[in-house]
Amino acid sequence: MLGRYLQAQATSFLRGLSLRAESEAAGDAPLCAAARRIAGVLHTYGTLTDESWSEPLRGELAWLAATLGREREYTGRLDRLLEALRRLSTGAASPAGAAPSPALGAARAAALLERQLTLARTRAHSATLQALGSARFHALADAIAVLASEVPLTPAAARPAGAVLPPLAATAYTRLTDAAAALPLHRAAHPYNAEAVQAALGAELTSDLQDAPWHQVRVLLRLSRYAAEVPGAGDGGGPRLAEAGALLRRHHEAAESASAVAAAARTPRIAPATAYALGVLHADQRHEVEAARFAFSRLWQPEPAGAGRAEPQPAVPGARTE
Amino acid sequence: MLGRYLQAQATSFLRGLSLRAESEAAGDAPLCAAARRIAGVLHTYGTLTDESWSEPLRGELAWLAATLGREREYTGRLDRLLEALRRLSTGAASPAGAAPSPALGAARAAALLERQLTLARTRAHSATLQALGSARFHALADAIAVLASEVPLTPAAARPAGAVLPPLAATAYTRLTDAAAALPLHRAAHPYNAEAVQAALGAELTSDLQDAPWHQVRVLLRLSRYAAEVPGAGDGGGPRLAEAGALLRRHHEAAESASAVAAAARTPRIAPATAYALGVLHADQRHEVEAARFAFSRLWQPEPAGAGRAEPQPAVPGARTE
Repeated sequence: MLGRYLQAQATSFLRGLSLRAESEAAGDAPLCAAARRIAGVLHTYGTLTDESWSEPLRGELAWLAATLGREREYTGRLDRLLEALRRLSTGAASPAGAAPSPALGAARAAALLERQLTLARTRAHSATLQALGSARFHALADAIAVLASEVPLTPAAARPAGAVLPPLAATAYTRLTDAAAALPLHRAAHPYNAEAVQAALGAELTSDLQDAPWHQVRVLLRLSRYAAEVPGAGDGGGPRLAEAGALLRRHHEAAESASAVAAAARTPRIAPATAYALGVLHADQRHEVEAARFAFSRLWQPEPAGAGRAEPQPAVPGARTE
Repeated sequence: MLGRYLQAQATSFLRGLSLRAESEAAGDAPLCAAARRIAGVLHTYGTLTDESWSEPLRGELAWLAATLGREREYTGRLDRLLEALRRLSTGAASPAGAAPSPALGAARAAALLERQLTLARTRAHSATLQALGSARFHALADAIAVLASEVPLTPAAARPAGAVLPPLAATAYTRLTDAAAALPLHRAAHPYNAEAVQAALGAELTSDLQDAPWHQVRVLLRLSRYAAEVPGAGDGGGPRLAEAGALLRRHHEAAESASAVAAAARTPRIAPATAYALGVLHADQRHEVEAARFAFSRLWQPEPAGAGRAEPQPAVPGARTE
C-alpha cells in the first residue's frame, strides 16, 4: 500500500512538472502537494524504506516545496493584508469628501506593503525559475521518476499494510497529540485573552517564541493527515484533523502577515500616518492569530456543554469528540 | 419612599461637599454619586415631583456631575493606556540590551499620552474649581439643601409607594430592554467578530455611530439601577444589572481611550515609531471595546447550554436568567 501510494504521488509530481511547462500557476500546486506528501509519508513510514535513500530525498523535497511555495505565500499575504486594510478603513470616505488622515495612512500603508511584497514575490519567482533549472532539481526529478516505477522498500514493508502501517501512524499521531497538549489551550479557549497581541510592541523574539509551538503542531498535523492518506493506515482523525489543520494554517498566515507588517514599519522615513496604519494592521493580525488559537482550542478540546471548565480530553484517532 | 430617598441623597451630597473642603479626592466621589442619583431618580419618577422644579434641577445636576467626573476620567484613562502599553511591550527588553524600535516607540507613545492626558486633567481640575466657586453652583447647592429637608412632591406621590413606583420603574426598564434588544447582540456574542475594530482607520464618525447605541444602553442601565434603589420600587434586576453596567462602563472607557489614542496620533511631527505604537494601542483598545460587547451580549442574552443558537430572551425584572 505504501509503495503504491508513493508511486501515485511520484506520478502526480511528474504530471505537475509537465503541466508547469504550459502554465506555471496550474503546475505549481500539484507539484508542491506531491512533494510535501512524499516527504511527509517518508518521514512517518521511514523505517519501511531504505533510509539511506529516503533521508536525503526528504531533504531535497522539502527544499523544493519551500522554494515553490514562497511565491504563492507572498501573493496570499499581500491579498490578506490589503483586504484587512480595506476592512479597517470601512467608512473612510467622509461625506464631506475630505480624506481623513487615518484613511490616507491606510492607503499609503497599502502602497508600501504592495511594493515590498511584490518585490519579495518577484524574487521568489526568480528563485523558483533558478531552482527548476538547476542540476540539483534535475537530480531530484530523476529520483522521483525512478520512484514512480520502483520504491526501495525494506523487507518489513512486505508484511500486510494493516499490520505494518497503523503502529507507525499511531506514533505520528501521538507526537501530534503530545505537542498539542503542551499548548496553552485552556488560556487560548478563553475569548479575548489578549495573549497573542501581548508582545506586539515587544521584541520580535517574544512573538516568535510564543508562536513556535503552534507552528510545530501545524507541521505534525500535516504529517498525520498525509500518513492517514496511505490506504491501510487506519482512521487518522478524519475531517476534524483537516479542520484543525486549516485553523493552524490561518494561525501561521496571520503570524507571518503580522511580521511582514512589522518589517514594513521599519522602513526608514515613512510618514507617521503610514506608521499608525501599520500599527493598527499589526495588532489586527495578531488578533487574528489569537482568534485562530481560540478556534483551534475549542475544536481540539471542546468544553462539555454547559460546564464552566473543561478537563483536558486527549483526542485519540477514531474517537471523535465533536 | 421617594421623598425619603431624595432627602438621603441630598444629605449625602451636602456631606460630600463639606468633605471636599478637607480632601478633594474624598469628597468628589460621594458628591458625584449623589448628584447622579438625584438626577436619575428625578428622571424616572418625574411625574411624582413638581416638574417645573425637577426639570431644571436635573439639568444642573448633570452639569455638575459631568464637570466633577472629568478629572477622574482622565486619570483613569491615562492609567488604562499606560497599562495597555506595558502589556503590549512584554519582553521588550532584549537580552542584548539594545532597545528595539517598537519598544522605543511604546515609550515615546507613553510619554506623549502622559503629556496630553495630564494637561487635560489639569484643565479639568481648574474647570472643577471654577465651577464650584461659581454662582451657578451655589444656587444648585442651595436647592439641594432645601431638598434635604423638603421634597416638592405631587399629590400622586402620596399614594403607597408599592402602587406608585413600580409602574414608573417598569417603564424605565422597558426603555432599557428595548434599547438593548436593538443592539447587534447576536453578532457581538460571536467571539472575534472584528466589528469594533472595523473602522479603526476610517472616519472617527464611523466608530462614534457604532458605539452610540451601546453608550445609550449604559445610560439607561444606570437609570434603571438608580430607580430600583428607591425602596418600594421593586426588584430592578439585581446583580445582573450591576454586572451589565460594569461591562458597558468598560466598553465606554475603552472607546474613549481609543479616541484619545487617535487624537494623540494626530499630533504633528511625531516619530513614525511613536505613531506605530499608537496604532497598535488604538487597535488594542478597539478590541477591548469588542471584548466588552461580547461579555455584555453573553450576559444579557445567555445562550441555552449546549444549543448552537439562542432565541432572544427578553430579560424582565425579577426573572433572573443567570
